[in-house]
Amino acid sequence: MSTDLDHRCINTLRTLAMDAVQKAASGHPGMPMGMADAAYVLWTRFLRHDPQDPTWLDRDRFVLSAGHGSMLLYSLLHLTGYDLPLEELKAFRQLGSLTPGHPEYGLTPGVETTTGPLGQGFANGVGMAMAERFLAATFNRPGFSIIDHHTYAIISDGDLMEGISHEAASLAGHLGLGKLIYLYDDNGITIEGSTDITFTEDVADRFRAYGWFVQQVDGHNADAVTEAIETAHGEAERPSLIACRTHIAYGSPNKQDDAEAHGAPLGEDEVARTKEQLGWPADVQFWVPDDVREVFRKAVADGGEAHEAWSELFGRYAEAYPEEAALLERLLAGELPEGWQDAVPTFGASDGPMATRKASGSVLNAIAGKLPTMVGGSADLAPSNKTMLDGYGVFGAGSAGGRNVHFGVREHAMGGILNGMALHGGLIPFGGTFLVFSDYMRPSVRLAALMELPVVYVWTHDSVWIGEDGPTHQPVEHLAALRAIPNLHVVRPADANETAAAWLSALERRAGPTALVLTRQSLPVMDRDVLTGSGGAARGGYVLSEAPDGEPEVLLIATGSEVHLALKAQECLANEGVQARVVSMPCWACFDAQPTRYRDEVLPPGITARLAIEAGVSMGWRRYVGSQGEVMGINHFGASAPYKDLTKAFGFTAEAVTERALAVLERVASA
Amino acid sequence: MSTDLDHRCINTLRTLAMDAVQKAASGHPGMPMGMADAAYVLWTRFLRHDPQDPTWLDRDRFVLSAGHGSMLLYSLLHLTGYDLPLEELKAFRQLGSLTPGHPEYGLTPGVETTTGPLGQGFANGVGMAMAERFLAATFNRPGFSIIDHHTYAIISDGDLMEGISHEAASLAGHLGLGKLIYLYDDNGITIEGSTDITFTEDVADRFRAYGWFVQQVDGHNADAVTEAIETAHGEAERPSLIACRTHIAYGSPNKQDDAEAHGAPLGEDEVARTKEQLGWPADVQFWVPDDVREVFRKAVADGGEAHEAWSELFGRYAEAYPEEAALLERLLAGELPEGWQDAVPTFGASDGPMATRKASGSVLNAIAGKLPTMVGGSADLAPSNKTMLDGYGVFGAGSAGGRNVHFGVREHAMGGILNGMALHGGLIPFGGTFLVFSDYMRPSVRLAALMELPVVYVWTHDSVWIGEDGPTHQPVEHLAALRAIPNLHVVRPADANETAAAWLSALERRAGPTALVLTRQSLPVMDRDVLTGSGGAARGGYVLSEAPDGEPEVLLIATGSEVHLALKAQECLANEGVQARVVSMPCWACFDAQPTRYRDEVLPPGITARLAIEAGVSMGWRRYVGSQGEVMGINHFGASAPYKDLTKAFGFTAEAVTERALAVLERVASA
Repeated sequence: MSTDLDHRCINTLRTLAMDAVQKAASGHPGMPMGMADAAYVLWTRFLRHDPQDPTWLDRDRFVLSAGHGSMLLYSLLHLTGYDLPLEELKAFRQLGSLTPGHPEYGLTPGVETTTGPLGQGFANGVGMAMAERFLAATFNRPGFSIIDHHTYAIISDGDLMEGISHEAASLAGHLGLGKLIYLYDDNGITIEGSTDITFTEDVADRFRAYGWFVQQVDGHNADAVTEAIETAHGEAERPSLIACRTHIAYGSPNKQDDAEAHGAPLGEDEVARTKEQLGWPADVQFWVPDDVREVFRKAVADGGEAHEAWSELFGRYAEAYPEEAALLERLLAGELPEGWQDAVPTFGASDGPMATRKASGSVLNAIAGKLPTMVGGSADLAPSNKTMLDGYGVFGAGSAGGRNVHFGVREHAMGGILNGMALHGGLIPFGGTFLVFSDYMRPSVRLAALMELPVVYVWTHDSVWIGEDGPTHQPVEHLAALRAIPNLHVVRPADANETAAAWLSALERRAGPTALVLTRQSLPVMDRDVLTGSGGAARGGYVLSEAPDGEPEVLLIATGSEVHLALKAQECLANEGVQARVVSMPCWACFDAQPTRYRDEVLPPGITARLAIEAGVSMGWRRYVGSQGEVMGINHFGASAPYKDLTKAFGFTAEAVTERALAVLERVASA
Repeated sequence: MSTDLDHRCINTLRTLAMDAVQKAASGHPGMPMGMADAAYVLWTRFLRHDPQDPTWLDRDRFVLSAGHGSMLLYSLLHLTGYDLPLEELKAFRQLGSLTPGHPEYGLTPGVETTTGPLGQGFANGVGMAMAERFLAATFNRPGFSIIDHHTYAIISDGDLMEGISHEAASLAGHLGLGKLIYLYDDNGITIEGSTDITFTEDVADRFRAYGWFVQQVDGHNADAVTEAIETAHGEAERPSLIACRTHIAYGSPNKQDDAEAHGAPLGEDEVARTKEQLGWPADVQFWVPDDVREVFRKAVADGGEAHEAWSELFGRYAEAYPEEAALLERLLAGELPEGWQDAVPTFGASDGPMATRKASGSVLNAIAGKLPTMVGGSADLAPSNKTMLDGYGVFGAGSAGGRNVHFGVREHAMGGILNGMALHGGLIPFGGTFLVFSDYMRPSVRLAALMELPVVYVWTHDSVWIGEDGPTHQPVEHLAALRAIPNLHVVRPADANETAAAWLSALERRAGPTALVLTRQSLPVMDRDVLTGSGGAARGGYVLSEAPDGEPEVLLIATGSEVHLALKAQECLANEGVQARVVSMPCWACFDAQPTRYRDEVLPPGITARLAIEAGVSMGWRRYVGSQGEVMGINHFGASAPYKDLTKAFGFTAEAVTERALAVLERVASA
């Protein structure tokens, strides 16, 4: 039975949120006040975590999908003993504080994922639960359940309106993720007013239809919430949704159940009145009663004990299974198994012609054996994306160790799930779809970049040269739009060996995601005895083919399939007595990160006759070709036709490139 | 009861699809073969349309959401008498044909929307049904049901896995769109195999939870489908889902129920064997028996008759309600009510400071009375986006004439629904969210641009200057990423009057969407007695403030809030004796469309000392500043802090701009 002390603990969560938002004159008090009871129950009676070591592998994961309620999380972290002093709560939403407006992974100890964009946390949690299940199946041994934890989240009406919640919930139900437990803040309020104005679906029935185990409780009844979580623990086969009927801004005499309480301070008067109503001193801010702190701080001792017991178990595991233990520790440290790079294949010219998507599939399968926790799949395009890991099974309800995930036609959930897998740690996640459908998962890609997660995207069918499927399936603006995202590496390799190099770079990169942009159509495997080795690809751009006499007059810069066009044009130009250098530039971001000296070697400042060639919008290329140069791009949507017809229709032929290069040269000469 | 002739009609649909895909050596035969029965029933027994006039206002709308089954639609259009000769079917997926890989709106007569990216058509249909209901409520009069039609769609497993289907279905159920009837091709097959591998939700229960009326039938039983559609017609309060259990590639001895039949030709042998099994001559291609053609072609007479009866009704309506009729005709012709522009307000300097989102709200409300079919709303951010049309009611189940739509936290569905509204015709649709969440609706925005639809997006909170909400809510890459989309106008006005000009341009634009990118924070209303008038904004870029002596040495180019920074820097530079011109450039695409002469007047080629200033990634600006110029951008994610702290932290102060401008000048001088 809940006691008065319980209620004071809960009200401490409420008042801290009110005070911090009021002090910042900005923020979201309503949700923390509404979900304080449920969060208190979860964090003090169930959550297995060690505030002194937020990186403990086997901790329960907690996701605040409704990230706008960040003050609830910060209060919980502070009170349970994480390294987050009260001073930080007082600096809520201020420059340089550990308490930004929405929770940020990597910044605040104990924050498991960056949330705020609705629905993302929901999908992250599904990814975490999948990671837990996979790692348990892979590393646990009889008597050694070294990986065995729950994933919890607090989710909101907003999360459930977002499409990504549908996708992720449907997949979680399909997979039967029994250790996933979501507390739904069913407060009936959205920004525009009551949810009645637009959100009248039967959420419980909807989730039952997905195969979830659904309970509905009074979210202000701590005992009812306790019982529901206990019952959820008993359900092994289905993910759990516990719908907590709550009142937003609970306790506020004038703003409870009011949309205004969602995203604005209550106002000083209302804060005082609310405190009065909650039996709280009205004139004190950020007050944490000693006995309240004591209750929360039990987490330190309890968590420490649990962690220690686990460490003892893991120690014995390491003795019994030294290889497994070493591998796991290595992976958790963000390192890959030693020598995995040796498995990356080299392709000979005679292996071609070969689409880069096919080369990618070969690389994936060549390295799969060396990277036993590489897990991924496609949003129902595996045969096209070449993402199947042959012989490694399908991840499913009855096959937790399978490494191939059938994400379904759920690009957005895939993006959020890959983030969740990376956040959990231990896995090397990748996911594929057509490049044009990167748009469907873009919000999750952005968060991967923001969180600096090592996720790899396999985006194939990378240009209008996919042909017959037409403009709906032909990316045109996508390379530019993706390059615009800070910290996302976008790599468009020109042949099989550049593809291998791209995989190598992508997997070695630990501080951000990499997008592999791959062709549908076959491309020659370039003869590296004649051309420069593909090693330069890792630098983002390199001299692939020097001008015949070593003194280039014009630079041809290209990516992917257009590199071959540049090579042909180089020959044509040579026949006309013009010396051209071909630069392959698979990754702008990687090239930009090189020292000036290297960049100037590849693109000598003195050579202003430059032509960039890429089958996409020309946006952004100007910085590499300069004012004197030109860009051959495709600044319009594509068309449905066999791809060779399109190359002619859109002027992407060696002759056209040659002509344009000559025109640029002439203009520069006459300038 | 279905007859042998019915079956031959249905098999004609199957064989045409097989033949066209086989001839093109590319395409999707499985779906047309599986849904031929249901499509036949719908198109010959229910669909009210006039093949001779695909623009007839009161026709039923048909959406092939599963756009990969395009050959089914092309066959239906050809057979029922649209201007789509058999020769076009033979040129399936060829350059310049009317039969591209996926249906394209504006290209093929009778194609109501461009589909292929899954889930989009689902949402389009919801938008069409909303448009129908709104127009009926607005224009119908007792005895004059001039607008009264159904919206049908064929949807697939893939559509239902996509998150947008959840969002749109939930809203459609909430709105009780009784005239929306979707036939679900429940064939149990996706590209990666059986849907059992990833899609095991109970779709029927899920849709019941949304408030839909669900029926389940054998999709190969034409009579059962007929009965189900009839029953759906009797259901006025709920949208209908008719789940048709089908076999993909029905009739193919070796490929029926096989994922391979989804997206590849059956092969010549299998085509022949399938024809045999269907009782079809195996060696004839593109064969349409005369009696079959006769059945389908009845649509011409029936449709003509229905259309004529409607025209007669509309004629009498026009006599009784001449103003309404004139307005409706004008809107359908793509023109706006005469003189609406006069209602666009002008703002004085004393009206400021004012956020451009607020100015947008003022403009919207000032013109709302003149544009009675302007309908829109926000994805649950109306109070922030300032999208409410005051006094015009809420569009809902019981208020069909309301002009404010509560889209809910459903950005993606909002995008698809706005497209559907625009496609239906008669409406002027707009929708808002935060700029950062344009990512959530990007696939629909792309399609609006591709389809050349006049949709207006109101994207507020347009930069890191939103402050405390932090990097998850701070757009950085979005301006660049959106500018990359062909045919999308991205307009970032610098003050209230540029905002008014932006609305004017957006609504006058008929051949594509416009994104209004608006500030959260207040900005001065520029004094147009001192500065150039805001009329230049319509040209995308204009000289806002000439150098004091009329002979600029350096050009400061900026958009939105940064224009004010440029103006301040101009003063600082003047104090140092440097002549700077300030160019406001709210819309790149509009500026690029101006004659060279105008562009050279605004950005004189002779002045190479140029500085662009914009609070976002600098990508793409190089083409305006040239090799000698510089770009002040923000090429990293933002941070949570009060916005004035961020301006200092990120170096966006008048002093910093002045310094950079001086540095550019110096470099140019010494070059």
